[in-house]
Amino acid sequence: MTSNADNGSTKVAVIGLGSMGLGMAGSLLRAGFVVSAYDTSEKSCLAFAQSGGTACRSAQEAAVDASAVVCVVVNASQTEDVLFGPQGIAGALPRGAVIISCATMAPADAINLSGRAAELGLHYIDAPISGGAIKAASGELTVMASGPAEAFSRADPVLAAMAAKIYRLGECAGIGASIKMINQLLAGVHIAAACEAIGLASKLGLDLRTAYDVITASAGNSWMFENRVPHILAGDYRPLSSVEIFVKDLGIIQDMARAERFPAPMAAAALQLYLATAGVGMGQDDDSSLARLYASLSGASLPPVKIFD
Amino acid sequence: MTSNADNGSTKVAVIGLGSMGLGMAGSLLRAGFVVSAYDTSEKSCLAFAQSGGTACRSAQEAAVDASAVVCVVVNASQTEDVLFGPQGIAGALPRGAVIISCATMAPADAINLSGRAAELGLHYIDAPISGGAIKAASGELTVMASGPAEAFSRADPVLAAMAAKIYRLGECAGIGASIKMINQLLAGVHIAAACEAIGLASKLGLDLRTAYDVITASAGNSWMFENRVPHILAGDYRPLSSVEIFVKDLGIIQDMARAERFPAPMAAAALQLYLATAGVGMGQDDDSSLARLYASLSGASLPPVKIFD
Repeated sequence: MTSNADNGSTKVAVIGLGSMGLGMAGSLLRAGFVVSAYDTSEKSCLAFAQSGGTACRSAQEAAVDASAVVCVVVNASQTEDVLFGPQGIAGALPRGAVIISCATMAPADAINLSGRAAELGLHYIDAPISGGAIKAASGELTVMASGPAEAFSRADPVLAAMAAKIYRLGECAGIGASIKMINQLLAGVHIAAACEAIGLASKLGLDLRTAYDVITASAGNSWMFENRVPHILAGDYRPLSSVEIFVKDLGIIQDMARAERFPAPMAAAALQLYLATAGVGMGQDDDSSLARLYASLSGASLPPVKIFD
Repeated sequence: MTSNADNGSTKVAVIGLGSMGLGMAGSLLRAGFVVSAYDTSEKSCLAFAQSGGTACRSAQEAAVDASAVVCVVVNASQTEDVLFGPQGIAGALPRGAVIISCATMAPADAINLSGRAAELGLHYIDAPISGGAIKAASGELTVMASGPAEAFSRADPVLAAMAAKIYRLGECAGIGASIKMINQLLAGVHIAAACEAIGLASKLGLDLRTAYDVITASAGNSWMFENRVPHILAGDYRPLSSVEIFVKDLGIIQDMARAERFPAPMAAAALQLYLATAGVGMGQDDDSSLARLYASLSGASLPPVKIFD
């Protein structure tokens, strides 16, 4: 996160104000950029406007005169729609603007979108992100970026405002996406393992909070165990990241692995659990809801589920 | 880790001088205890003698006059043999001595051993450990301990010399073992996931060292990913912890989960990978050898395997 007076002459558009995009847009505001943003959700636009940003009525409106666009939507299809769809912004952006594409997608999609941007005289950074909503809000994300040097020269101040760690992984789109998919393979498996472990701990009669304390100080810990198990302990399954996200991402991984003739049984087992959790109706809930699937399959008792408005 | 002059009058026996036990025995020496130790491997006994300890010719010899025994063997069967077998030490220990049992085992086995110790007037702490060989050597292990208060009062100074974190989980044997098995479920799954992720990263043409750097700074990280992937990058599969350890531990978890009518598909998938890795002849190699299984199944290229004496 930087604060730079020079940024005041630079307009950045943020498309997508979900749990990640809203925090990133806020980080850009704090760094002094002129930030205009758009989301299909009016509620999200309102939240951004209340934090001092300019919420627009369309992605195209947000993109006018922007020298950089941060695209933080859910997947490749949404990114394609934002950029090149009927209401796409690619035509509204000034030539030479840089697209910073943060959605998790297959490497082939990143390569395709980058090529189409280049045809229109636009720069493109394949820039998936990691770190969660809290680090998005504090400007401390990890960015797994790849693209040409010229694109980076335009994107660097914007990336610096949003991220604590910027990995510059190569000159071509697709490398960032590949690393992000590897991260998602691990993240998806680790959440499933965390939920399996907590469910079994409950069946064994262990105190779950104590188990959490011990595991997080032990070799069985993972970033996801540490981050998601508190949701289970609190009975709070409001989606910071939903089950459907991993239905999508582990699905992409299965497609990629199959194309590479690479057997991925851990990711495959995890995908089945996300599918089952979505299948019984929890697809829009927090991904820690896999613990509720395990509980329902085994009679394990978990802290009661809290109901929110 | 403590250094206490009072410990000089206390004799502690350490049975088992593997990668964990040797370090723990060294920590006890540094804390001022009189330490006698035994291992079936002469090489391990020699290493301990060279570090200033007393290596004995049998477990019974090590146990004479010891007020505490730290038993750091591989499993329940070996622990039972050390304590109650034909050459077992239970008869050689003074009444009131405390057995600190560190091997990973099923909770039912810990309960059984604790009961038999009690019949002989011996105290028993169910005290599995976590942290790896480096933390064992530095006296900074995590101990997941359960047992009666009277047993703890005798064991505490010994535990304090070996561990940075001592979790006192309850009055009964079996609780420590249960938490350790939950830790092993996670650890075993995370190693398998790490190897799957590195194998796929290689197939995608990613630079593996860069992938390691990015993932360890991202939400896909785990203690095991961070600890084991360097073995793969170095091509060093000398066993710090062998494939067979997880064949054992994930096998126990499957037995426990089945008995509880708890489906554990993640642990089950991981177990199959450890079995396959052992099945092709790598059972005694480091558990990061699962990466070599993935490579052999997919044509992924990994850093060359180093050959050591």
